[in-house]
Parts: sequence; C-alpha cells; structure tokens
Amino acid sequence: MKNFNFQAATNILFGKGQIEKLVDVLAPFGKNVLLTYGGGSIKRNGLYADIQEKLGSEFNVIELAGIEPNPRLETVKKGVSLCREHKIDVILAVGGGSTIDCSKAISAGTFYEGNPWDFTNDSSLVGETLPIVSILTIAATGSEMNGGSVITNLETKEKLSFGSRDLAPKVSILDPSYTFSVPKYQTMAGSADILSHLFENYFNQTTDTMVQDGIAEGLMRTVYHYTPLVLENPEDYEARANLMWASSLALNGLTGSGKAGIWSCHGMEHELSAYYDITHGIGLAIITPRWMKYCLNEKTVGKFAEFGHRVFDIEKTNNQMLMAEKAIELTYQSFKSWGIPMTLGEVGIDDSLLDEMASQTVKHKTMDQGTFVPLTQKDILAIFTDSLVEMY
Amino acid sequence: MKNFNFQAATNILFGKGQIEKLVDVLAPFGKNVLLTYGGGSIKRNGLYADIQEKLGSEFNVIELAGIEPNPRLETVKKGVSLCREHKIDVILAVGGGSTIDCSKAISAGTFYEGNPWDFTNDSSLVGETLPIVSILTIAATGSEMNGGSVITNLETKEKLSFGSRDLAPKVSILDPSYTFSVPKYQTMAGSADILSHLFENYFNQTTDTMVQDGIAEGLMRTVYHYTPLVLENPEDYEARANLMWASSLALNGLTGSGKAGIWSCHGMEHELSAYYDITHGIGLAIITPRWMKYCLNEKTVGKFAEFGHRVFDIEKTNNQMLMAEKAIELTYQSFKSWGIPMTLGEVGIDDSLLDEMASQTVKHKTMDQGTFVPLTQKDILAIFTDSLVEMY
Repeated sequence: MKNFNFQAATNILFGKGQIEKLVDVLAPFGKNVLLTYGGGSIKRNGLYADIQEKLGSEFNVIELAGIEPNPRLETVKKGVSLCREHKIDVILAVGGGSTIDCSKAISAGTFYEGNPWDFTNDSSLVGETLPIVSILTIAATGSEMNGGSVITNLETKEKLSFGSRDLAPKVSILDPSYTFSVPKYQTMAGSADILSHLFENYFNQTTDTMVQDGIAEGLMRTVYHYTPLVLENPEDYEARANLMWASSLALNGLTGSGKAGIWSCHGMEHELSAYYDITHGIGLAIITPRWMKYCLNEKTVGKFAEFGHRVFDIEKTNNQMLMAEKAIELTYQSFKSWGIPMTLGEVGIDDSLLDEMASQTVKHKTMDQGTFVPLTQKDILAIFTDSLVEMY
Repeated sequence: MKNFNFQAATNILFGKGQIEKLVDVLAPFGKNVLLTYGGGSIKRNGLYADIQEKLGSEFNVIELAGIEPNPRLETVKKGVSLCREHKIDVILAVGGGSTIDCSKAISAGTFYEGNPWDFTNDSSLVGETLPIVSILTIAATGSEMNGGSVITNLETKEKLSFGSRDLAPKVSILDPSYTFSVPKYQTMAGSADILSHLFENYFNQTTDTMVQDGIAEGLMRTVYHYTPLVLENPEDYEARANLMWASSLALNGLTGSGKAGIWSCHGMEHELSAYYDITHGIGLAIITPRWMKYCLNEKTVGKFAEFGHRVFDIEKTNNQMLMAEKAIELTYQSFKSWGIPMTLGEVGIDDSLLDEMASQTVKHKTMDQGTFVPLTQKDILAIFTDSLVEMY
C-alpha cells in the first residue's frame, strides 16, 4: 500500500425526501444561487418545480440550463460570466456527472482570470472556489462526492479532466427516487461507468491493497446484482438506492487511495467521446472487456482470477487462466445482457479515425508506464480494432 | 436501505513518515496543545521524543499521561481542568481508542458546565468542542475517524458511550509502522474489535444493504488474512497497513449507514469490561461466537451462510444451516488460533456476577428490540454462561 491522503468531506444526505433539508443546507452559503441543470428532465419529473417552490423568494436564483452530456467549455464560460455578473454565492447543481462536473469548472473558473480550459493542463491553477451543493439524478460518475471534473473542448476535440479537493460538493442530496425516471440506456451506461471506476482502480500494479480491493469487489457485486433489477423495474427503490450509493463510493477515494497508477480505459474512451460525442459509460463498456483480454498474461492472470472468484463467484481452481478467461467473458456478457451495444459500429464509430484516436490517447495520457499493463499507441489501436467486432 | 447522513470529514494522512506533516496540520488550530497519551509505550518506541522534537518551542505543550485502557471519568475531568487552566487550543491524542475516546470527552467537557458523564446519558449535551488531532498507535477501535467515545465510571461500574460528529478528529496520522511494537495480545484484541464492529453492523435486520455488507465482507477478509501475518511477523508493514486502514473504515459510518438497529455484543461486553476491566477486544471475541450460535435460526440462517461464503470461502450449497454452523465455528476457531483466551475463566471471570451483568446489560441498552435477534436478560445470561466453557 502506498502513502495516501483521504478525506470524504461532502455531507451526504441520502434517501427519500432529503430535499426537505435543501433550504437549510443552502442558506449558510448565501442568497445568490446559480441553479445548473441539463436537458430538462428535471422539469418533466417535477424536481425543478419542487426546488423552485422550496427556494421561493428567499433566494435569488439565476439559471444555467442545457448543460450537455459531455459538458463543453463554452458552457463553463457562460456559467463563469453568470457567477461574476450576479455575484453568485453558491452553485446548486441538479443532475448527473455532467452538470456537477461543469459546475466545478464554473466554480473554479469564477475566480480565475484565464481560460478555464487551463485547469485541464494544470489542476494547481484552481484557487478560490464557489461552494457547490448537488442534487443527484443519476447513479454514474461519482462526481457528487469528489473533486474531479471532465470537460470537453469541441474546438480541439479534447475531453480532459482536472480536480481539486476544494471542488467536492459541500453537500450532496442523494434521493434514489430521483433516478426512477432515468431511461434504460442511461441507467446501464451509468452502471458501466461505476464498474469502470472500480475496474480502473482494481486492476493496478500496487500490491497488498486488500482493503481497497475488498471494497471494490463488494461494490462490483452490488452493481451486477441490482442493474438487471432496475432495468426490469425502474422504480425499484432498493435497487436504485444501492446503485446510487455504489456510484458515490466507487470514486470518492476509497478504492483508489493507497494505489499508484494510471487509468487505461478512461484514457481511450475519452477519445471516443471527444470525437463522436458518444455516451461515456457505453464507450467504457465496449472497450473494457477487450482491454481486459489484451492485458491478460501470466503476470496479470492472478488478479483476473481473483476478480472472477470474488465478483462472479467463479469457483477457485488451479487453472487460473480458465478462471480469468471466464471472468472476462462474464464482464462482456453482462454488459450485453443489459442491452448495451457492444461494438463500435453500433454506436456509429467505424475504423476511419481509430488511428487518430489512438494517437490522441497517448498524447493526452501516459499509457506506456504506470498503467496496469503498459500500452503503446499500437496496443491501443489493436484494442480499438478489437472493439469493432463481437468478442464471443 | 434506510435514509442516512454520511460524512467522513477527518483528514487522514496515511503511511510511513506522515509525522513530518504534524506541525503543518497542528499550527492552524493554535499554539496551546494538550498532549494526551496512555501508559508510556510511545516513550519506549521513540514516538514521544519525535513529537517533542517536532513541536519544539513553537507550541506550548501540556501533558496528560496515563490514560487507562478503559479511560476513566476522573481522567476526563483532569483533562478538562488542564484545558481550562492552560487555554488549550487543540488536543493532540497519541495512542489508540482509549486515548482518543478520552480526548473526545475532554474536548466536549471543556465547554460543558456539568459532569462530562452526563454526555453518556444525552449526546446532545455536547456543545462547543476543542479540535482533536490524533496519531494512531494501534489498529482497533476506529475512534481516529469517527465522533464516538466510550468512557468508564468505576464508581458506578458503568462503561457507556456518547458521540457527536463534531468530536471526530480533524486530522489523523495513520502510520502503520507505529503499530510494529504493539504486543501480540493487544494486536489480536484489536483485530477482534475491528471484526466486532463489522459484525455488529453486518448482522442487522435492515435488508437491501449490499453496498454496506459488501464493504464489510471485504474488510472482514482483510482482518482474517492479515492478523495471523502480523502475529507471526509484527513488523510486516503491508499487513499492519491493511489492518490499520480496515480499523478506521470499519467504524466510520461506511458499514453502518443506511441500517437501523442496536448492537448486541458491545452491550454485553461493556459490562464485562466495566466489572472486570478486561481488554475490550478479548471480551468481544469470547462473546461473539456464542452470540452467533444463540442467534442462529431459520430466519437468520441466510445471513450467516452468506457471511461464511463471502468471508471464509465456504462453498455455497442448499444446506444453509450447515454453511452457517461452519461459519460460526470458523469465527471461534480463528480467534482461538490467534491465541485469544476463548473462555471467561481464562480472563478471570467466574459465574458469580453473570446475573448482575446480564441485568446491567438490559438496563444500559435496549436489547429486546432493534437488535439482530431480540435478547432478554435471560438470553444474555445464557450467552454469558455459554462463554464459561469451550464451544468445540
């Protein structure tokens, strides 16, 4: 285990009806609120009206609507202008990872003289920040309980991340019933995203991290158990609750602290999203099992076998390679059984830009050292190419 | 899953050499430091000298030494007097759960006009508090990452708890190498204590808590894996690190949030400690397997079987009762194999006060509802009596 620093300072209010505490948690930060949200689903499901009613005339609410699924730099800049113009005290982010991520960039950007895109090159440029309160409406990115943010620059076709502990929401309201109306496609993309965060930390070179890995295995089992149940019955409160809490804990430092290393699949997927604007979780689901198979070798087989045993209940035998192969197949088949399109073609990606995207991956991220298995541009191209056809 | 509120605000500095940050983390709170510690082991292992050197002449350090393994009310009162007299700004608690628990009572007691014992009757009496920075020297209670405290009143033979989120240490330095010198007896008592915290939350009536239970199972496997390794080689850094981090996460809300219910074994053990001043973890190890067996019935068998499968790798079969019995036996035999005295007689407790302690248990704690299995005074006496003789 490596040395680490852990703090989960976000005050989580979890469960049905926690919205009743909204005014109490918002008030200490001030009266001027920037309300951020996405495509308007919160208007359809009644949450928007509920928030407006609760904030009433006590708060001055300015709105930034229409935050994109892959939130764009221009939207961040628009938010920064609003915060400065209206002397915003607190950002109320209502939505999923995109809305919260965008709100983080706005929070830091408000006090930064340059282009907020600079943060993606150097997180230490984040100085003063505006407090964020979030109301989560989809279980996926974990942004509600950490300081990370991913922003897309359509001009340069780049999707890059930055982070600061100060950007973690001060309070997050997690009411599983707000995710009842999440469509099937977004629900399974969210589950794939949660799993990917767990995989990226789990398949790692640091040894003796049984605490972190045991937690990750438990959260993986949770996602595999409950995802089919919510796809079947979107209003299954207990299933939604477990997925929601798993999403927050998957990326709040619990499974990654004490490990050194660089994530692999997110680096590759960010290129797919940047070039084709596909849903992040779907891209991850497509790439991950190919990446696993590509990484499977005599050195890594033990970890994949353990994964299969702990997560898929594959019986322990002396043939670790067979256990590992079975685990990778189950990873693929689970995504497929949920209904995820498991080839690039099905999400509109052909082979024309694979080369360019592989090149961009290694440009944006060190992939040939520090990753679970070192990957060159050629390896990445091979994984992209494998993703064009069915695995089984 | 029940509604809950979660926040892990303690800033954890984990790993070898983190003491180098001590001055930086202490300074923001002020110059007047109350240094609290126990029986002097930190003088023998060099930590005391290291702290003194680091604090140097920059801080005014007042000492409260000799905090007991079951910290006493009189010691709390002594600490309160010191804090008031010397206008203490921050308490630096160096030790294990006893020292940190005592420091919490001092922290709250400093601003309370009445007897700090009152807190054990009503935690809401905790008002203003002094900040606490802790340096952990034994993996056991989890007090380094939560707001709970257990205090003993020798006069009334009572050992009772209270808590407030404000009492959680602001910063905790967790350097596993500080636990190298923990003797074998305290090491295994600590591991039993960690397991007990996990058991108490795990064996619970709330359903659909796979997130919490999966985390608990991972932490239990960690304790079972690494405890024999540290008993064999006390300076195994990786093993000490996993036990230390498991101890903090076992009781910081992760495995208990979202569940309603009352702990059983702690209620019974607190009477043993209050009457006989035995080591808390040892008392828990003795009581727990008897309690498990007493609770095993057709309604609870599924949970015990799952526990056995996930934690001890017992193969899943249709005979859940056999799986459950095997799991309970392994719980007992593991403690025994570490070297824990597994009967009350071995820790100097005979049958003379069992009746009185059973009566006190139900006086101090509601045990007949809200617990995993309701327990009457008669049931508790039976569990105490079972603890007089070997189980297998």
